[in-house]
Amino acid sequence: MMKGNVRKKEYTLAELTQGLTVEIHGDPHCVITGVGTIQEAQPGCITFLVNPLYKKHLPSTQATAVILSPDDAKELTERQSLNRVISTNPYYVYARIAAFFNPKPLAIPGIHPTAVIGRDCEIDPTVSVGPHCVIGNRVKLSEGVVIGAGCMIGEDSTIDADTVLEAKVVLYHQIKIGKRVVIASGTIIGSDGFGNARHQGKWHRVPQLGRVVIEDNVEIGANCAIDRGAIEDTVIEKGVRLDNLIQIGHNARIGENTAIAGCVGIAGSAVIGKNCLIGGGTGINGHITIADGVVVTGMTAVTKSIREPGIYSSGVGGLVTNLEWRKNSARFHRLDQLMQRVKELEAALEELMVERKAT
Amino acid sequence: MMKGNVRKKEYTLAELTQGLTVEIHGDPHCVITGVGTIQEAQPGCITFLVNPLYKKHLPSTQATAVILSPDDAKELTERQSLNRVISTNPYYVYARIAAFFNPKPLAIPGIHPTAVIGRDCEIDPTVSVGPHCVIGNRVKLSEGVVIGAGCMIGEDSTIDADTVLEAKVVLYHQIKIGKRVVIASGTIIGSDGFGNARHQGKWHRVPQLGRVVIEDNVEIGANCAIDRGAIEDTVIEKGVRLDNLIQIGHNARIGENTAIAGCVGIAGSAVIGKNCLIGGGTGINGHITIADGVVVTGMTAVTKSIREPGIYSSGVGGLVTNLEWRKNSARFHRLDQLMQRVKELEAALEELMVERKAT
Amino acid sequence: MMKGNVRKKEYTLAELTQGLTVEIHGDPHCVITGVGTIQEAQPGCITFLVNPLYKKHLPSTQATAVILSPDDAKELTERQSLNRVISTNPYYVYARIAAFFNPKPLAIPGIHPTAVIGRDCEIDPTVSVGPHCVIGNRVKLSEGVVIGAGCMIGEDSTIDADTVLEAKVVLYHQIKIGKRVVIASGTIIGSDGFGNARHQGKWHRVPQLGRVVIEDNVEIGANCAIDRGAIEDTVIEKGVRLDNLIQIGHNARIGENTAIAGCVGIAGSAVIGKNCLIGGGTGINGHITIADGVVVTGMTAVTKSIREPGIYSSGVGGLVTNLEWRKNSARFHRLDQLMQRVKELEAALEELMVERKAT
Repeated sequence: MMKGNVRKKEYTLAELTQGLTVEIHGDPHCVITGVGTIQEAQPGCITFLVNPLYKKHLPSTQATAVILSPDDAKELTERQSLNRVISTNPYYVYARIAAFFNPKPLAIPGIHPTAVIGRDCEIDPTVSVGPHCVIGNRVKLSEGVVIGAGCMIGEDSTIDADTVLEAKVVLYHQIKIGKRVVIASGTIIGSDGFGNARHQGKWHRVPQLGRVVIEDNVEIGANCAIDRGAIEDTVIEKGVRLDNLIQIGHNARIGENTAIAGCVGIAGSAVIGKNCLIGGGTGINGHITIADGVVVTGMTAVTKSIREPGIYSSGVGGLVTNLEWRKNSARFHRLDQLMQRVKELEAALEELMVERKAT
Repeated sequence: MMKGNVRKKEYTLAELTQGLTVEIHGDPHCVITGVGTIQEAQPGCITFLVNPLYKKHLPSTQATAVILSPDDAKELTERQSLNRVISTNPYYVYARIAAFFNPKPLAIPGIHPTAVIGRDCEIDPTVSVGPHCVIGNRVKLSEGVVIGAGCMIGEDSTIDADTVLEAKVVLYHQIKIGKRVVIASGTIIGSDGFGNARHQGKWHRVPQLGRVVIEDNVEIGANCAIDRGAIEDTVIEKGVRLDNLIQIGHNARIGENTAIAGCVGIAGSAVIGKNCLIGGGTGINGHITIADGVVVTGMTAVTKSIREPGIYSSGVGGLVTNLEWRKNSARFHRLDQLMQRVKELEAALEELMVERKAT
Repeated sequence: MMKGNVRKKEYTLAELTQGLTVEIHGDPHCVITGVGTIQEAQPGCITFLVNPLYKKHLPSTQATAVILSPDDAKELTERQSLNRVISTNPYYVYARIAAFFNPKPLAIPGIHPTAVIGRDCEIDPTVSVGPHCVIGNRVKLSEGVVIGAGCMIGEDSTIDADTVLEAKVVLYHQIKIGKRVVIASGTIIGSDGFGNARHQGKWHRVPQLGRVVIEDNVEIGANCAIDRGAIEDTVIEKGVRLDNLIQIGHNARIGENTAIAGCVGIAGSAVIGKNCLIGGGTGINGHITIADGVVVTGMTAVTKSIREPGIYSSGVGGLVTNLEWRKNSARFHRLDQLMQRVKELEAALEELMVERKAT
């Protein structure tokens, strides 16, 4: 475990698990000073077991405590030095406990003197605005909002309570962000959608008059780009999770609690349902609809609407050597010829069969 | 329609269409206060009809005016309350009219006191330089240029008249930008191309001595990265449209009026023709040439030059369930075996045929 | 050759090649004022020949000197005006010589007065910190470090000697950067990894307590996003080269001297070996291992571990017209039926064969 990860603090297991639905086997007063992986944890650390691949490390872990499921707990021989936190959702319990040891700096309320603040803003006194931020006119920042260093917030935007913009986030004008949203560095919210009208052989930009609306509890990674709507809004619904380098086109709508991995591109006016999981590198066509509960595997081209929950993929799976790939690909491009040969075989055989009957 | 989209302004239909080649059926003095989609437009709004899918909403639209083609206009029963703007290019007319209602803040000429300006710059008095910008030595900004908050412009770069850099754009040194260019936030122009020479088992950076030249009327989306040339320049020709998160390698050249959708990667020294359309998520190899007027569908791997206009794709299309995909993929990887079996069938049949002749 | 590329300096061939293992044929005192491509070089320029495609331009080049291999040198007829620099690695020699003509601005040591510096930082007096930078508490910057305009460096981060962050790089807290690293604009290092625990139907962020460690001599392009580790660190080993718009998930490890082209996405906990080459647009699954010396072609989905060096690809290669692609794809989705028809043929033929034997 990284030394740097430990805030010079220590907690008893009882303190760390207060309010969580867990059972403690062992000493609830043992002192925990950090977290570690099951293989690398040192005495003083708490660890967790979720992935069955790591179960083999459990007997030898040096951790002082482990979070695990009732089933895994059963298999574990009692050992005085290893305290157990038993939960039906060990990963969630880990997430809650790890928060105690998060070295993320805490923001200090107040507006840094180098920040440039527009006219007629409403900024709650509990808000933190970092150095070199630029806040446009009539921006509203509610209680507990944190604006990291170097953020730019366009005029008439509003950010609701306890939302955090990390360093160098850009919000254009009229963006509406809900409560407890987290946006990582480099992400751009509300640039113009890709609307172009052709006239006399040249492109003309179609003004993008909609907004971006990001609902409560959304979390967005680094260097994403979410375009404003053309007329209506681009909407990211409650609880959505976006990884890094994701592009979301104008008028798109991402449904509640959907999680999207890195490098996904979503074209304009796509509507994605609730509780979907979209694998990394996937591309989603414009003007299509994806039902609730759909899983799309990585690097899929979603070229049409998906009406039913389920797992979807495109193309041909399978990583092979480049040599084999070249052969496979060549064969693929001769599929028509193969089909033709099969047809000829069928015809010839038919002829033989007819002849046989005749004799 | 979003309330926020309306600048507290109203225009008559006559004012909005001045200078456009349109025919007005109805009242040219009716007052328009905003725009809306055909389904959602309220009285006071102007809407448009381009996509035939939306024609069904025409009879029931609440809009005060609609922009549509002569053919669609013919089908529409006269209705006193719905004024018609008839054009052979309704989307372009919409783009022009929507500009009246664009809530995008206007830049104020002048250099913000927090901007840091280098030596020997030529900055026209009409230029707007936003807060916290950093402008290098000998930069030239022509009349009407707008540099958004937090932009960095490297030394010896020049930006021609009426170009807009939105917040947090980075231009490296010696970048040359034409007239009426728009670059969205987070885009990086002129970082070193990916040139590495291997020597004694290690990589050595090859200095990138070229520039990036962006010609007039180009528009570039958010968080793109356009590398400077190795020796000669990377060139984006007149009127090109780039969406978000696009990578353009060193020495590439993108031809006039070509439009490229989001998440496309273009490798070094690729030359793309004029009036091409490149679908989202596509990858284009280095050192290849694409003819004028080529369309590439989304997520295509352009692995070789394209000599003729037309529509091009790669791989296998079709979104299926993951189960079917696994089956398909397994079959694909047995294509060789299938081919073999067909060959054996052909040989056996041939034998039978020969035998039949002999009898 | 761009005029702007020439620093008003000139060097003799002898000066440019000092310390390099080369042989000069011709006049070592000839004066070189810039570089050029073999086709475009003007008198006064030095050029190089590596790609055999360009050999045809050698007889007509206007360059004053050319860097080339012993074999290529043999083929070249002696010409008084063309001086030759002969090396077994002409591209590397070019890289070294081109550095003399690099117009990249040099940083001036010192902290710009607009930079905001935290408490208890250790900043060597030779360090350059550009305008509008924000440096967190307890940051350590060693000798010769250059921090470009508008960079943000989170608290407790350390940057070792002679590393350059170009404009607008973001380092989060506790990031550790080695010596002679170069990071291009817009890149974000150390944002939280994509760790989410589901509880009662909602996502909860799993705190990301690890760091990002970037070893010596790494170079990273523009607008990349490298996540901090969940518990242990995300590590980019010595000499790695990353192009633009690359995403690297938490806990990933990229091995020494591996080079990764643009738009690649690497999921969490992937371990990539040394001296690998990863083509642009490729996606690499989480929790997999790639051996040393592996080459992955562009736009490949690396869905499983690769144990042996070699060249790997996925899917179906081949760019075709969209019409052909639609046909191919349709055939692909009927492969099962084709297989069935071949089986029926085999059965029928078997029957005939059996019958024939019987007669």
